[in-house]
Amino acid sequence: MPRVTLVYDYLRQEEKLLLNELRGVGLEVATLPATERPLKMGGKPETDVAVIRTTSMFNGLYAAAAFESMGVRSVNQFRTILYSGDKALTYALLARAGIPMPETYIALGSRAVFEAAKLLGYPLVDKPPIGSWGRLVSLVYDDFNLVTVVEHREAMCNRQMRIHLVQEYVETGNRDIRCLVLGGRLLGCIYRIAREGEWRSNVALGGRTEVAEVTPELEEIALKAAAVVEGDFVSIDIFEHPEKGYVVNEVNGTPEFKGFMRATGMNVPRLLAEYVKRLAKA
Amino acid sequence: MPRVTLVYDYLRQEEKLLLNELRGVGLEVATLPATERPLKMGGKPETDVAVIRTTSMFNGLYAAAAFESMGVRSVNQFRTILYSGDKALTYALLARAGIPMPETYIALGSRAVFEAAKLLGYPLVDKPPIGSWGRLVSLVYDDFNLVTVVEHREAMCNRQMRIHLVQEYVETGNRDIRCLVLGGRLLGCIYRIAREGEWRSNVALGGRTEVAEVTPELEEIALKAAAVVEGDFVSIDIFEHPEKGYVVNEVNGTPEFKGFMRATGMNVPRLLAEYVKRLAKA
Amino acid sequence: MPRVTLVYDYLRQEEKLLLNELRGVGLEVATLPATERPLKMGGKPETDVAVIRTTSMFNGLYAAAAFESMGVRSVNQFRTILYSGDKALTYALLARAGIPMPETYIALGSRAVFEAAKLLGYPLVDKPPIGSWGRLVSLVYDDFNLVTVVEHREAMCNRQMRIHLVQEYVETGNRDIRCLVLGGRLLGCIYRIAREGEWRSNVALGGRTEVAEVTPELEEIALKAAAVVEGDFVSIDIFEHPEKGYVVNEVNGTPEFKGFMRATGMNVPRLLAEYVKRLAKA
Amino acid sequence: MPRVTLVYDYLRQEEKLLLNELRGVGLEVATLPATERPLKMGGKPETDVAVIRTTSMFNGLYAAAAFESMGVRSVNQFRTILYSGDKALTYALLARAGIPMPETYIALGSRAVFEAAKLLGYPLVDKPPIGSWGRLVSLVYDDFNLVTVVEHREAMCNRQMRIHLVQEYVETGNRDIRCLVLGGRLLGCIYRIAREGEWRSNVALGGRTEVAEVTPELEEIALKAAAVVEGDFVSIDIFEHPEKGYVVNEVNGTPEFKGFMRATGMNVPRLLAEYVKRLAKA
Repeated sequence: MPRVTLVYDYLRQEEKLLLNELRGVGLEVATLPATERPLKMGGKPETDVAVIRTTSMFNGLYAAAAFESMGVRSVNQFRTILYSGDKALTYALLARAGIPMPETYIALGSRAVFEAAKLLGYPLVDKPPIGSWGRLVSLVYDDFNLVTVVEHREAMCNRQMRIHLVQEYVETGNRDIRCLVLGGRLLGCIYRIAREGEWRSNVALGGRTEVAEVTPELEEIALKAAAVVEGDFVSIDIFEHPEKGYVVNEVNGTPEFKGFMRATGMNVPRLLAEYVKRLAKA
Repeated sequence: MPRVTLVYDYLRQEEKLLLNELRGVGLEVATLPATERPLKMGGKPETDVAVIRTTSMFNGLYAAAAFESMGVRSVNQFRTILYSGDKALTYALLARAGIPMPETYIALGSRAVFEAAKLLGYPLVDKPPIGSWGRLVSLVYDDFNLVTVVEHREAMCNRQMRIHLVQEYVETGNRDIRCLVLGGRLLGCIYRIAREGEWRSNVALGGRTEVAEVTPELEEIALKAAAVVEGDFVSIDIFEHPEKGYVVNEVNGTPEFKGFMRATGMNVPRLLAEYVKRLAKA
Repeated sequence: MPRVTLVYDYLRQEEKLLLNELRGVGLEVATLPATERPLKMGGKPETDVAVIRTTSMFNGLYAAAAFESMGVRSVNQFRTILYSGDKALTYALLARAGIPMPETYIALGSRAVFEAAKLLGYPLVDKPPIGSWGRLVSLVYDDFNLVTVVEHREAMCNRQMRIHLVQEYVETGNRDIRCLVLGGRLLGCIYRIAREGEWRSNVALGGRTEVAEVTPELEEIALKAAAVVEGDFVSIDIFEHPEKGYVVNEVNGTPEFKGFMRATGMNVPRLLAEYVKRLAKA
Repeated sequence: MPRVTLVYDYLRQEEKLLLNELRGVGLEVATLPATERPLKMGGKPETDVAVIRTTSMFNGLYAAAAFESMGVRSVNQFRTILYSGDKALTYALLARAGIPMPETYIALGSRAVFEAAKLLGYPLVDKPPIGSWGRLVSLVYDDFNLVTVVEHREAMCNRQMRIHLVQEYVETGNRDIRCLVLGGRLLGCIYRIAREGEWRSNVALGGRTEVAEVTPELEEIALKAAAVVEGDFVSIDIFEHPEKGYVVNEVNGTPEFKGFMRATGMNVPRLLAEYVKRLAKA
């Protein structure tokens, strides 16, 4: 019987559902709390596939890398977690592949941030390359605001927090589209709509969800974005840009799918379990 | 005339030599202080090759990614900087390729660190995945020492600092071998010998250098290690393990070469410039 | 009826007992979760005494200061929390008052740390000025250990973490004496005995407690130490130094008293409530 | 001959002038780079007065405390550096003494920040208790801005950075008054006028200076503010509040006096040297 290991930090509702479905499709499932046990680089594998479901990007990245060092297939692969976990790398890959995205500058120092602001004009969006749930994604109206953001980021210890992605603010009516891709297939898309008094549509910030119609353009851009990060199971956040049409804003390498299930009624963990099973037997 | 951009934080002696040689081989050279100017993701390229010579790993990584987003060839490529800049990823890639390395566990939490110590025994070496010049690489004699290291790392804000690589301590007489690889060719190897009162051989910690003889085994392992990180120009740090022979300890994606030049007399920047020129014309 | 406000982060067993006793002695008690409500500097007071029972030193410090700004008596006063919350300030005050303490140097930079080590010899104890429950208190055997500690502390963002208290290691058989002082009266003393495999006697690190006999010398030194930090309710940690006799190692401005109650059978929260009542009526 | 030690981090112009004047008034002067040498708590003093001129607040605080532990008079005393180095403590002391100041709330958690904003309305000023040269002092227009500030501060490791002073924004025409007090005497006052495109008047942020007339009210409030922090030599930053008149915004315990000298022509280091001499002989 093919063996699979579910790697997690917290067993959320999503991981419990997935655990059930992995067993349901006939896999032998072990669970691994990521921080509890050391993993030997190049050690003898005791599993066929590692399914990474950590909330911490770094836990997921390093667990995936450790499993791959043993020759175990990881879902997602560490490369995918790395590329999608760092927004600067995501944008670099999207841009290189010619996939539409918001106009974005990377600034490695304060002077470069202010220069980027001059090129873009206000309002603009500033964010660091790492971070989840919309945190530190800042709407900036003017130079005073930008000084506030720059000074705060300068005061942070972590070098990556002092890197700025400076972007055009895309007027979207405070909603975006989240598409879920599994194994090169688009499962579907939903709208995420920001709550009253918040411009970011993240569910973690109170946003609500609604099914979105899948158009061929939406499918094309979502699949292309998944491909550039070499993602098995990823979500793609897309803005409807007033002039440019669909633009990819972000890719998530350990996607939450609770809101998606609620909106679409699809059994995502079942589909994921079946995909993992195919990999395990390969 | 092919154009090349030298990206740097500080113009050290090495960058000045390289600048000269790049011009010497007939390239049109622009210099870019990494933190001064914003780089547009997917912007119009004004150069053919970007040579990354930043002291900050993140500056190098993001500058390389930005240039690649424009279709510019970067030396090294961002992937190489990423893989060699994170020791956990380096070890994962080395192990997957079957390249000999010190026995190494990755521990994502304190409990896992102590379990790894039980598996390895003391003395052991503990280090975080990121960091340069030997910093935070700790020699640990016993549980009290390990508690000190774990508590200090727990007190750090940066999640990556709370990740531990726990390794066998390789008795090397406080020296290691540094090999320089350029474009799939081994330029040579030197010993780095720790100064009195220090067990780490890093030159930044006072170590001195001496030419080392290149054996076929050394060449093979160095070239393999360079290949797993897809490195154009990298250095490989190798230990002489009392039982296992050569083991790769680290790969550097923006190698310093001053000590290497002094020990070997080779004109490294000239060779690098010629390599860059070939890429620029390709 | 006199009014008192209990300020807390978490309602631990100790705060619940205290809440009961404050009500039991006939006070009108309000509770204030420290982080939930803003406090106006110089605002109109709605209480007579604020009892500070936060686990976070800074929450306690700032809540006390805010209440004092309104003319409210705080227990402890902010000065006490400040002086005992910073070990460097505690030692400075102890030393100025001629109270015996371990031989201690303060080092504001790495070079000074190594010089202090030369003056003291190994083994020694190194700790930062702030921190609780024994955390980061490091036993250091030799230069390699000290380099590990210094490098880790240099890597921390918080300036206070890069300050070192470098002390003689006091051979105490891994136990110390904790004395509880309330309103200038010594309530009693207990031993804290380190658990197997740990040299620090902190209860948070697994230490156990036993009643200690109160000698006149112990009483004198404990009361003096309480006085230099102007403490209403403080605990004093004392070592039995093989040559110097009792030496004060630490003063705690928001003392835990659970272990003390268990060992001595004294109703500490009752005594504290009665003390607070006297202040409230004053 | 009375002995004095000048404690510094960097020998700026101001420290060089002071060094000259201390010698000029006939003192035997030693210089101590704060981070270079360990200081023994309660050690044998080799000086009569320590003059603290560090740029780092913590270096000054701990050096002063160490000297005071030896019985040496420190200028300023550690208490003064502590009280003025922490804006929350300064405001608490000012408010308790009834000295006019901007309406200020302290918020120990995010929820409390938003509640303070509701009480104050926008625009408001948000700043952490520690920090110099106006850094992180943020002008906040609306909830979006405040969310940006709160999220950034939450992302900081240092607990004190997650403490918020939330204040009314005082419309001052972007200037404030800086008064210099020495030994209970007001030396004079200057205006600090913000540069174009900056609302904060700090000289470090490009502000310029001009002499201000000393009124009896200005003198009274400056001397009172110096007294609450028990300052020997301090500067007091004062706003002209449209309705409340003079309000004290900040006290500096290691005042820079270069701009003051330029504007007033007073020989501040000479006056300070004479003051120190009187203390040394006392």
